[in-house]
Amino acid sequence: MSQTKPLHFVTLLGSLRKGSLNAIVARTLPELAPEGITITHLGSVGDFPHYDQDVQEQGFPAPVLAMAEQIRAADGLIIVTPEYNYSIPGVLKNALDWLSRVAPQPLAGKPVALQTVSPGAIGGARAQYHLRQTLVFLDAFVLNKPEVMIGQAMSKFDAESLRLTDEPTRAYLTRQIAALGALATQVSPHTPDAG
Amino acid sequence: MSQTKPLHFVTLLGSLRKGSLNAIVARTLPELAPEGITITHLGSVGDFPHYDQDVQEQGFPAPVLAMAEQIRAADGLIIVTPEYNYSIPGVLKNALDWLSRVAPQPLAGKPVALQTVSPGAIGGARAQYHLRQTLVFLDAFVLNKPEVMIGQAMSKFDAESLRLTDEPTRAYLTRQIAALGALATQVSPHTPDAG
Amino acid sequence: MSQTKPLHFVTLLGSLRKGSLNAIVARTLPELAPEGITITHLGSVGDFPHYDQDVQEQGFPAPVLAMAEQIRAADGLIIVTPEYNYSIPGVLKNALDWLSRVAPQPLAGKPVALQTVSPGAIGGARAQYHLRQTLVFLDAFVLNKPEVMIGQAMSKFDAESLRLTDEPTRAYLTRQIAALGALATQVSPHTPDAG
Amino acid sequence: MSQTKPLHFVTLLGSLRKGSLNAIVARTLPELAPEGITITHLGSVGDFPHYDQDVQEQGFPAPVLAMAEQIRAADGLIIVTPEYNYSIPGVLKNALDWLSRVAPQPLAGKPVALQTVSPGAIGGARAQYHLRQTLVFLDAFVLNKPEVMIGQAMSKFDAESLRLTDEPTRAYLTRQIAALGALATQVSPHTPDAG
Repeated sequence: MSQTKPLHFVTLLGSLRKGSLNAIVARTLPELAPEGITITHLGSVGDFPHYDQDVQEQGFPAPVLAMAEQIRAADGLIIVTPEYNYSIPGVLKNALDWLSRVAPQPLAGKPVALQTVSPGAIGGARAQYHLRQTLVFLDAFVLNKPEVMIGQAMSKFDAESLRLTDEPTRAYLTRQIAALGALATQVSPHTPDAG
Repeated sequence: MSQTKPLHFVTLLGSLRKGSLNAIVARTLPELAPEGITITHLGSVGDFPHYDQDVQEQGFPAPVLAMAEQIRAADGLIIVTPEYNYSIPGVLKNALDWLSRVAPQPLAGKPVALQTVSPGAIGGARAQYHLRQTLVFLDAFVLNKPEVMIGQAMSKFDAESLRLTDEPTRAYLTRQIAALGALATQVSPHTPDAG
Repeated sequence: MSQTKPLHFVTLLGSLRKGSLNAIVARTLPELAPEGITITHLGSVGDFPHYDQDVQEQGFPAPVLAMAEQIRAADGLIIVTPEYNYSIPGVLKNALDWLSRVAPQPLAGKPVALQTVSPGAIGGARAQYHLRQTLVFLDAFVLNKPEVMIGQAMSKFDAESLRLTDEPTRAYLTRQIAALGALATQVSPHTPDAG
Repeated sequence: MSQTKPLHFVTLLGSLRKGSLNAIVARTLPELAPEGITITHLGSVGDFPHYDQDVQEQGFPAPVLAMAEQIRAADGLIIVTPEYNYSIPGVLKNALDWLSRVAPQPLAGKPVALQTVSPGAIGGARAQYHLRQTLVFLDAFVLNKPEVMIGQAMSKFDAESLRLTDEPTRAYLTRQIAALGALATQVSPHTPDAG
């Protein structure tokens, strides 16, 4: 599918740790994007308070509104996250809990790709299927394939420079970005169902 | 979204029981379809043997090939099924296990809607999220909303005629069929990712 | 199964909202406990910072250590929580992410019961199965039945006093507390597997 | 935990293929069992018809009743299965659908361990969490850890003799069988909750 118009994607990172391998992957994505696609990073989910409806009723925090606006303006979203305790990190889910309440809801009809990085063999798969269930409610268009679950992650990064050096992984990421581009082109413009 | 070309959907039923409420719902769908959409029924999943790769290697059973061809020819698929033991009925999953091996794989890029009917309050929700996970692998476009989970089902059918008489439920089903129509129009034609 | 020794359970609440129906249910549990079982409340998950391994390495926050110690000392844990976006509230998952890192890990071998309250028909079921997956990793003994998913919740509380007045719901909660008591008696003492 | 009384476990196999790696693993388990534990094999899930309540009402098929009785008589159950389409094989789920209807229900209160073998990296994990959800309804005691998900399976079997030769995998299986033994000792005898 040829990319006829330029596309812009944003990344949402599920880890706060400075040296996070997921953060490294997110930072690497712009250079891996195929021609016609640009990628920039959303703010930190650590800037959101804990979700509390009482707080919401006094007004949405500024970082929530800013992120919602950036997601709305983007052609697609890439969530890059570790798996914590066989599920979504609380801090990432908390960000989605805030974003889900903003109107218009920014994920509705949005093309989304998932990436998880983990030291174990499973590569974060368990977090991805929980995210997919949440994204049903948020009415996103979640890319089916290719699924990016980077397992045995320590072997794929240069220990000194902390760069993602594994070439098959880099090529695979490019392939997923291109697939998200194809999906975004296919489903745009989307009129989300109101229900 | 106006329906510019006529669409044809097929239903896949997850229960073998003659008096199944799910069967009644499936049979009711053609009369509930909005203008421009026709609905017919696939054969019974009971006509498939148990999946066994040794059997497959001797040739796919005729009912499997026939159903695969009907799904490929349709603009969308509606799966109507009970929940068994908090998951997909084995007999329905067995059908998907067979269909997944046929090439070209008939669910790839196919718009799909899910409907579950159950006597309890939960309405089959647990089966739906398991089906959604399977449909990620099969690369289908599964409709997010509206979700059809018909709980407290006994109260929604006429006990004597065994017809689906509950008007809000009938209207809701029409709304889901229309939403599947909108999705089918939006994503067609689809070139599924090979991965 | 007769309760031979007194048991003490603690509740973990997944919502921060002051008027939360889940909070009301949690506060009601002590008066619903059968003889021989006492129930007290853990601190607020809102007192935990966002999980961040960099923060952890400077020392666990005091509220995390205090809650871990209270869970370890209890004979069982009751998690009472809303469902947010078809999954666990971020703020509750964040608390579990912290607790999972403390040694000895306080959930290991711990009898746990789940309760969800929601305005819709599904009653929070989707959050419960995600919690169960997390609790596999945490090596807890999660009670199978009875499952407490309080749907159509508004009708079960007195609108003025905000008390849980629905008698069948109250009796059902007592039954679950008794079942957790039976489980705690059955599996105690537990030597958790190290793997 | 010392094994004071001899224990007997039975295996349930989720694949019908003659050369299945899962079948090889199941056949290997008796020789890997620690002292005091014996393991035998249940009949084939391929001998069950498709579940159909109309058939059930004419009487349970003999293989269903026989398997139910063998499970009831055992101290624990080991399910060894491939993952099909990101979930439980239909043929295995069909067997559980039959067994769930027999009274007394044979899985209630039964210690269960899960093993999946697959050629990919994920090792069948997705099937295991779906099985765990089904086993909540069936009120089984499912072992949390160690989880046996044998990924990259081709490298762990001798290509000629088709024996499971990988020593770490063999030792890990022994460890899981011992953990199931400890669980069975801990929870026995069980009076399942009626709800």
